[in-house]
Amino acid sequence: MLKGLTRAGLGPVGSIEDFIKGASAHQFDAIASSGTELEQWIESKGLEAAQSFLKEHRVQICTIGLSVQWRTTEEEFRSGLIRLAQDAEAASALGCTTCTTYVLPSTDHPSAHFMALATRRLRTCAQILAPYGIRLGLEFVGPHHLRTRWQNPFIWGLQEMADWIEAIGESNVGLLFDSYHWYTNELNVDAILALKPEQIVLVHINDAPDVPVAEVLDNDRLFPGEGVIDLAGFLSALHQIGYKGVIAQEILTPQPLEEPSEGLFRRSQEGFRKVYAAAGLQ
Amino acid sequence: MLKGLTRAGLGPVGSIEDFIKGASAHQFDAIASSGTELEQWIESKGLEAAQSFLKEHRVQICTIGLSVQWRTTEEEFRSGLIRLAQDAEAASALGCTTCTTYVLPSTDHPSAHFMALATRRLRTCAQILAPYGIRLGLEFVGPHHLRTRWQNPFIWGLQEMADWIEAIGESNVGLLFDSYHWYTNELNVDAILALKPEQIVLVHINDAPDVPVAEVLDNDRLFPGEGVIDLAGFLSALHQIGYKGVIAQEILTPQPLEEPSEGLFRRSQEGFRKVYAAAGLQ
Amino acid sequence: MLKGLTRAGLGPVGSIEDFIKGASAHQFDAIASSGTELEQWIESKGLEAAQSFLKEHRVQICTIGLSVQWRTTEEEFRSGLIRLAQDAEAASALGCTTCTTYVLPSTDHPSAHFMALATRRLRTCAQILAPYGIRLGLEFVGPHHLRTRWQNPFIWGLQEMADWIEAIGESNVGLLFDSYHWYTNELNVDAILALKPEQIVLVHINDAPDVPVAEVLDNDRLFPGEGVIDLAGFLSALHQIGYKGVIAQEILTPQPLEEPSEGLFRRSQEGFRKVYAAAGLQ
Amino acid sequence: MLKGLTRAGLGPVGSIEDFIKGASAHQFDAIASSGTELEQWIESKGLEAAQSFLKEHRVQICTIGLSVQWRTTEEEFRSGLIRLAQDAEAASALGCTTCTTYVLPSTDHPSAHFMALATRRLRTCAQILAPYGIRLGLEFVGPHHLRTRWQNPFIWGLQEMADWIEAIGESNVGLLFDSYHWYTNELNVDAILALKPEQIVLVHINDAPDVPVAEVLDNDRLFPGEGVIDLAGFLSALHQIGYKGVIAQEILTPQPLEEPSEGLFRRSQEGFRKVYAAAGLQ
Repeated sequence: MLKGLTRAGLGPVGSIEDFIKGASAHQFDAIASSGTELEQWIESKGLEAAQSFLKEHRVQICTIGLSVQWRTTEEEFRSGLIRLAQDAEAASALGCTTCTTYVLPSTDHPSAHFMALATRRLRTCAQILAPYGIRLGLEFVGPHHLRTRWQNPFIWGLQEMADWIEAIGESNVGLLFDSYHWYTNELNVDAILALKPEQIVLVHINDAPDVPVAEVLDNDRLFPGEGVIDLAGFLSALHQIGYKGVIAQEILTPQPLEEPSEGLFRRSQEGFRKVYAAAGLQ
Repeated sequence: MLKGLTRAGLGPVGSIEDFIKGASAHQFDAIASSGTELEQWIESKGLEAAQSFLKEHRVQICTIGLSVQWRTTEEEFRSGLIRLAQDAEAASALGCTTCTTYVLPSTDHPSAHFMALATRRLRTCAQILAPYGIRLGLEFVGPHHLRTRWQNPFIWGLQEMADWIEAIGESNVGLLFDSYHWYTNELNVDAILALKPEQIVLVHINDAPDVPVAEVLDNDRLFPGEGVIDLAGFLSALHQIGYKGVIAQEILTPQPLEEPSEGLFRRSQEGFRKVYAAAGLQ
Repeated sequence: MLKGLTRAGLGPVGSIEDFIKGASAHQFDAIASSGTELEQWIESKGLEAAQSFLKEHRVQICTIGLSVQWRTTEEEFRSGLIRLAQDAEAASALGCTTCTTYVLPSTDHPSAHFMALATRRLRTCAQILAPYGIRLGLEFVGPHHLRTRWQNPFIWGLQEMADWIEAIGESNVGLLFDSYHWYTNELNVDAILALKPEQIVLVHINDAPDVPVAEVLDNDRLFPGEGVIDLAGFLSALHQIGYKGVIAQEILTPQPLEEPSEGLFRRSQEGFRKVYAAAGLQ
Repeated sequence: MLKGLTRAGLGPVGSIEDFIKGASAHQFDAIASSGTELEQWIESKGLEAAQSFLKEHRVQICTIGLSVQWRTTEEEFRSGLIRLAQDAEAASALGCTTCTTYVLPSTDHPSAHFMALATRRLRTCAQILAPYGIRLGLEFVGPHHLRTRWQNPFIWGLQEMADWIEAIGESNVGLLFDSYHWYTNELNVDAILALKPEQIVLVHINDAPDVPVAEVLDNDRLFPGEGVIDLAGFLSALHQIGYKGVIAQEILTPQPLEEPSEGLFRRSQEGFRKVYAAAGLQ
């Protein structure tokens, strides 16, 4: 399973090339980006040079964020669809095969109606991504405080998300599966062993502080191995079912971390080394 | 627009043949039935004789109820699918092209998750009906008391249902549109004029007593023309958009009506005559 | 049914505004355009001014051509998808609700494999158009000489196209139905009466010279009323089933017509007047 | 990868219980059956006893044949859909998760139109199987003599079938991948390495006589290891991509084999032992 990084938790990593260099220098295989960033990079550097840069540094683009606003009005949703096609073309040109978004566990919209609207909208997003060979990964979000943050409960569990993915009904939609949300849903290793690897589009890895589960905050994450989540069990179960994709860290924090990026890259590298070793992986 | 009857509000109409005879004798063009009833009729009478009986009486079968239990467990849902295919085959053999179900406005399941499950299940039902040329009609249910009858709100409005139908995403799914729910949602004629006729699978017509809208009970319906709903406006708008299907009455009452069926057929006939005339239709 | 024009057969009609003025001056309700043309018009004139211009001239944009290359390689196909989203956004902004393409009756690809590829590609096109409220119309092409023009037979009939539309399986796909192809398939009025109006996305009207049907050439068309096609029957059947959309002429000729556009507009106007009158329509 | 048997090539194996016993006694993990056979077995033995019988013999049902007639008329197709749901229910009750059919490489129907019809029909079959957790596997058929056996060419290659599966567009449709058709299409190991394991629903293994590829007959198959197909490469590539399903033999012969079943079971067991060993598998 490949090691990946998002920018979250790394401080000011600079340009995409700086980010790629930093990832490469610290033994990471992949970074997350955005369609706009990739498009601009291709425009400024040229496609072949960008492809070569990735190849030389042995780093791949593991995902772009879904740029479409699917949570508000129909107008906003629709106005983002050209951008989505452009994102997909840029991502595809650089070998990126996933696009991801998160799903908040509560909403100010009436829940059932919002579920109907979001089902149709995310299906449309998946359909636009499909011809580019890009899968759409949906992240269920577990922290308890967010379940009542907005007026009506939505969904936050693995099973509910899997059921929703079936309702969306496009074969290129799957899970963005984050250890943080696995933990805050109090799921165990068996829940992972029951998955098929092709259900998972991308994995996030993060650790949580030693507080009661119901008090874990979404934006108070620790680096892998620095907290209490059973990441050895998490990784080893993913390996066991045959998942071969990227495991990317995404350290959301209340304030930007003050350490220089170099130190945060090293901390990430050390965190991954530790939890991979604990899982019996290299 | 064809005049139709369901059994509700007609007392003990007897066998399907008695029901057809009664409908025919009172100038109705269509009756509602069930897949099981049609299958048994075909088995006992023979398919050609049943077809001839309908033809002689100039009555068509306008719908069968969706027999699948899509509201509870996956096991119950799945166990009804063979029956659904059998219903569809029987209905199709007798020229029936719609299958309908109602959607309660609240639920004891978490709303969003139930919406996801029901989206997938009703899609499956639509897919099983499609090869038989049968459309699936979904009825939104407006009465206010049902919106809080179960633990969580679901959907009860026309727009919400239209959005859900899009989320289900099968071209043979449309609205079962009931004047009673149009009224209890306080919709106007413009809401009908904004529809395309092909969005409507079947129409129900019922009247409501002169009580505040929020106090209208789902099972306390009046015959067309006996209450306060603007059925002339309702019918004339449906005619204006080009709807050519069946308008079927469904008089749900707290207790079975005590009049003999013959009188209830006549009351229905008179009700239809009155509201069709008020709408400028014959 | 609205009267519409494509540029084919009108000579050099000039800019889109000239085309709209000409159509308006000759009692036409609609013109065909392209996504690129509409986008450029919006860019140069401003969206509101363009909308007002259409409104003042009482002319609508009835369709844009499908700009995606769905007949050749996957690369070419995919490279047109951003453009398609842009076309759809421009068309939608100006109230256009259809996008159309034609299907040649033979192909140099192996037929069955090409059908599989084209099914998936046109489905993708329909999915990109759908969120903009745009339908995709597919035109079957009847002239006999084209059935053997390329190596392998494809499809050219109404039934085959209707079956293909079902195979594509998106609810916003329908027929572009051209009197010329109805004629060259030797179909009769009953074939039209068997259609539902919502199956038809757009109608083309053209007339054919008095030669044996098997010798009618695709690019040798006459103005409505100048040839032998039963256009009165054609129009009156479309009216009878409830079709309310646009009837657009598309006069393909071996050489560009040499008359000035003004005369060709008048000839079109007269042709429509004649065949509408013959059909008992105004 | 599990070892499986179909009845083809085993002589008169007797009842399903005899077949299971024979498979078990010769180290096979799975057998192929039919929905009707499974239903009758459940009816006569009782569901729990049938489940126990499979468990005791450590044999699973790896597939049922698709009983629906999807190659002829719409009436025949439709008349098989109830049976399909019944097959699926029986199969599902006994843990079988695949249903399979073969696709002949030529047809007497016009190819493109047949592709459109078959796309829609097989989609319907997949949709009926899906709620039962059953996948539909489609087998491309390579032998050259069948490519011209009927009037028009259809499809016979792996890529064409993969493209068709995309056109069908249901996530539970995949390949039935037979070494015999891999060989007669002259595909190599790289073609297998380019597949994802989830694309494969079931694998067939058969061997071919030492004649020119273009002369290999579909019904003249040899037991694994007795012919010239590189079955070691075939199996090892499937293992390498992570395929974990069943490898089932299906020895079609011009005449029923005359050896007693016991000998044919042993010959199968020995064939599997040999080719698994050659592939470095146990």
